[in-house]
Amino acid sequence: MNFKTSVHRLLNSQETRSARIVAFSIHGLILLSVVTFSISTLPDLGQSEIMILRWIEIITVLIFTVEYLLRVWVDKRPGKFILSFSGLIDLAAILPFYIASGLDLRAMRALRLLRLVRMLKLAKYNKAIRRFQKALLIAKEEMILFCVVSLILLYLSAMGIYYFEHVAQPERFKSVFHSLWWAVTTLTTVGYGDMFPITVGGKIFTFFVLMIGLGIIAIPTGLLASALAAARKGEDAP
Amino acid sequence: MNFKTSVHRLLNSQETRSARIVAFSIHGLILLSVVTFSISTLPDLGQSEIMILRWIEIITVLIFTVEYLLRVWVDKRPGKFILSFSGLIDLAAILPFYIASGLDLRAMRALRLLRLVRMLKLAKYNKAIRRFQKALLIAKEEMILFCVVSLILLYLSAMGIYYFEHVAQPERFKSVFHSLWWAVTTLTTVGYGDMFPITVGGKIFTFFVLMIGLGIIAIPTGLLASALAAARKGEDAP
Amino acid sequence: MNFKTSVHRLLNSQETRSARIVAFSIHGLILLSVVTFSISTLPDLGQSEIMILRWIEIITVLIFTVEYLLRVWVDKRPGKFILSFSGLIDLAAILPFYIASGLDLRAMRALRLLRLVRMLKLAKYNKAIRRFQKALLIAKEEMILFCVVSLILLYLSAMGIYYFEHVAQPERFKSVFHSLWWAVTTLTTVGYGDMFPITVGGKIFTFFVLMIGLGIIAIPTGLLASALAAARKGEDAP
Amino acid sequence: MNFKTSVHRLLNSQETRSARIVAFSIHGLILLSVVTFSISTLPDLGQSEIMILRWIEIITVLIFTVEYLLRVWVDKRPGKFILSFSGLIDLAAILPFYIASGLDLRAMRALRLLRLVRMLKLAKYNKAIRRFQKALLIAKEEMILFCVVSLILLYLSAMGIYYFEHVAQPERFKSVFHSLWWAVTTLTTVGYGDMFPITVGGKIFTFFVLMIGLGIIAIPTGLLASALAAARKGEDAP
Repeated sequence: MNFKTSVHRLLNSQETRSARIVAFSIHGLILLSVVTFSISTLPDLGQSEIMILRWIEIITVLIFTVEYLLRVWVDKRPGKFILSFSGLIDLAAILPFYIASGLDLRAMRALRLLRLVRMLKLAKYNKAIRRFQKALLIAKEEMILFCVVSLILLYLSAMGIYYFEHVAQPERFKSVFHSLWWAVTTLTTVGYGDMFPITVGGKIFTFFVLMIGLGIIAIPTGLLASALAAARKGEDAP
Repeated sequence: MNFKTSVHRLLNSQETRSARIVAFSIHGLILLSVVTFSISTLPDLGQSEIMILRWIEIITVLIFTVEYLLRVWVDKRPGKFILSFSGLIDLAAILPFYIASGLDLRAMRALRLLRLVRMLKLAKYNKAIRRFQKALLIAKEEMILFCVVSLILLYLSAMGIYYFEHVAQPERFKSVFHSLWWAVTTLTTVGYGDMFPITVGGKIFTFFVLMIGLGIIAIPTGLLASALAAARKGEDAP
Repeated sequence: MNFKTSVHRLLNSQETRSARIVAFSIHGLILLSVVTFSISTLPDLGQSEIMILRWIEIITVLIFTVEYLLRVWVDKRPGKFILSFSGLIDLAAILPFYIASGLDLRAMRALRLLRLVRMLKLAKYNKAIRRFQKALLIAKEEMILFCVVSLILLYLSAMGIYYFEHVAQPERFKSVFHSLWWAVTTLTTVGYGDMFPITVGGKIFTFFVLMIGLGIIAIPTGLLASALAAARKGEDAP
Repeated sequence: MNFKTSVHRLLNSQETRSARIVAFSIHGLILLSVVTFSISTLPDLGQSEIMILRWIEIITVLIFTVEYLLRVWVDKRPGKFILSFSGLIDLAAILPFYIASGLDLRAMRALRLLRLVRMLKLAKYNKAIRRFQKALLIAKEEMILFCVVSLILLYLSAMGIYYFEHVAQPERFKSVFHSLWWAVTTLTTVGYGDMFPITVGGKIFTFFVLMIGLGIIAIPTGLLASALAAARKGEDAP
């Protein structure tokens, strides 16, 4: 098991220089596989380019597979690792290649990007991450309350604008579900311009809906600010 | 009155298991009625589908009517309940069905969604809700002041852009009222793109109007953040 | 001078019931004149309607003129009143009618709306207004610094996008001045859609410009929040 | 070296009246050169106008060159000045004129605008600038963490919308890179309207992406607010 422990240390700790090289290489490979996937979506690629991308992909998946199998093998509780969030992401990154279910699921590989957050596992960033987690914990009930209330407001806005605009713009505001799309893009102030009210009632209704929309943006901002301040204060407490 | 008290406890308290089942079922029925109403607005529905939706609607309204009548009966002060916010919402949810005044008012039923907020009536959420109410109380005068000032600014922006753009785009900026719609969608930064200035004067005016618009978004956010922090501090005070 | 003092008290104090009636009537008249002006901008007005609006306007301006002359007369220092902000607004509200310089300047009347803020001159709102003024004073240098930096960033964004997009879209990004309009509507996230980059360089540049834009929205919000909190804390200090 | 010290004091200190006049003139010249450059980008300029702009440009660059050479000469460590941020900006402002590489690089001159921030070098503004720098230092790790997480989320949004919309809108969502542009303009809520989802899956995905987008705007705002408050508190500490 000496070999097993060495491999474990190589993959998970960041103390020895070899471990850091391994971590750095895996992260570099994640970035590479993400970039090659993006390039592969470009139209008008030449045959040789497609070949090169394909080979890089094969090699990358092979290395990821070896890494995954090693991780399962060295983990004290393999079952727990396989079912954990990290474990599932790693599996989703390599499985589509073997199941050959089409181009789409290879996109799952991009979820490995979330592992890049581990790159910031230095003491300083740990402190910042913990402060965020603490802030989220402090504001947890308020965030959930806010989510529920926003969803209800979103739906009521959709229904209201459907009532006002359905007759005047039957092609756009076809149903409450179509109006939900308008509610989302308007309340978040994105405002693509693909749907907007043209009746007077619809415009007045939108005015009130937008006043509430401001509240929707203001609330989580206020929440987070006060929670972060509380989290920070808790640290400096005498 | 033992029966009356039992029904009262069943509808309003959440202590016994039966009461929780009743509450859960009513909430589930609210969600169902909202979903079926949304589906009924979809175009191109087949005859059988319309039939099914209609039957679900009839059954749901019947159950809501029974629930409403029970609530009125068991309440110690029925008149107060009927005129209360919850009472009016519940009545608005079932009345359109009996008055048969058209499809539109059935949308009122969606207001019952606001009752879903009662689902979060756990101790933890109560604390969050109370914190919000306290924050709103602390910031009450500032919020009203902010509202009055924004309305005045909205109107002045509308009048200004009308002055600048009316000649160049008579179809768009037809009157001050039409320009008010531009002011609303621009100051909230939604920016649909259905109306925008094309004259130099209009663009410069919009620049200043937007600088103030930033202030409009910043102020309630700052207000809420400081009020929430004050509310939170009031709780932890020694 | 007993009559002069009585009129002074009638116009400026709000203690006696008559004074409050006078204040309320003047405010109501301001709102009325603003509404009639807005209606007068509507196209397709009938002759009788235009007549009615004209008469209301004549009567309103007459009352405003009397009020203005009274205010000048009863003020201890008339010159100071005439040159003060309120005095100039009141004069601007009635002058266009006498100078008959066209429809446009009657819009100045709308500035009287700013006097409506005086309606909130109750103790509670005074406290909120003073808190805002205190917050603005605390954050004054930071706000000015923020303004200067934003203007510079706005200009640099305009110049950058001109460099990237001028060749590809010569009609849209005609000059640095035209690009300034793009910078304003993009950095405030309004995004009308009348101008946007289509080159790769322009899009990448916009990405960085928008990251800074987020900072532009975040900074005054953070500024105001911390200043309001400081202002509030200054009040509760033991 | 008396002359050298005098020139040094003239250029860098702001104590004597001559030094202030020099500083004011240089700043005025920066503004002038920026305005003339902007005007030179306007189409349809007459020959005489182009001549005047050209002469102003020549004179301005000559003065900037003299100023630059003087600064290098009087600086105790010329090499350090040449390589410093200010030094490079000053050089970039005059070099394109001599290298004659085309109209484009003259835009570099606009970077001199950043030197205008030095105009605010009064005690009061110093305090505000220092407070900002302190706030940025306090929030440094959180800002970097936020940046990394946003970039990952941006990429995942781009990949997701590509997956949903590529088939339905092959011209718009051509590749993951094209979709990245959509992700940027949507998550910052600019919403030009040049690209938006039309499939149901795409719209639902966008809803979730926008919910996260709200978080992206809320987080730096909350960060900055709490950091500014902490910086301000650190000043008033007994």
